[in-house]
Amino acid sequence: MFLAKVYITLKPTVNDPQGLTIRGALHELGFANVTSVRAGKYIEIQLEEVDRAEAEGQVESMCRNLLANTVIENFRFDLEEVAG
Amino acid sequence: MFLAKVYITLKPTVNDPQGLTIRGALHELGFANVTSVRAGKYIEIQLEEVDRAEAEGQVESMCRNLLANTVIENFRFDLEEVAG
Repeated sequence: MFLAKVYITLKPTVNDPQGLTIRGALHELGFANVTSVRAGKYIEIQLEEVDRAEAEGQVESMCRNLLANTVIENFRFDLEEVAG
Repeated sequence: MFLAKVYITLKPTVNDPQGLTIRGALHELGFANVTSVRAGKYIEIQLEEVDRAEAEGQVESMCRNLLANTVIENFRFDLEEVAG
């Protein structure tokens, strides 16, 4: 069994209104030294799979086909073996 | 200058409809071995701060006061020193 930790971020050139809003709110709370905020997604997926290479291929495919919009987003993931 | 990578996840006992929806969609796409999906947030914050301990305290405070709802969410973060 594997636990995939998937990180999805907007590509650097893509405008991020959510991040800008968070930055504005942080400034209002007094955190004036915050220069940039980028908001992304973090998804944990548990997979019943014994083979690491197979699990990696599947998570890569999940990201490309469903989780990330690869036109505007980048993704990366870590795979951890966990006890079934 | 520091880059904080903040991970916000729902507490294990909290219901996660977004995760369930993603799991359903993955099953429909043929990934039948997915047992659980939990959806969270990933936020990158750049801070103009020279002292690591000070930066850590600030990010902790940002999480508690704005980024995470600590009633239903957990947060953790890594702090990386980056070139200004």
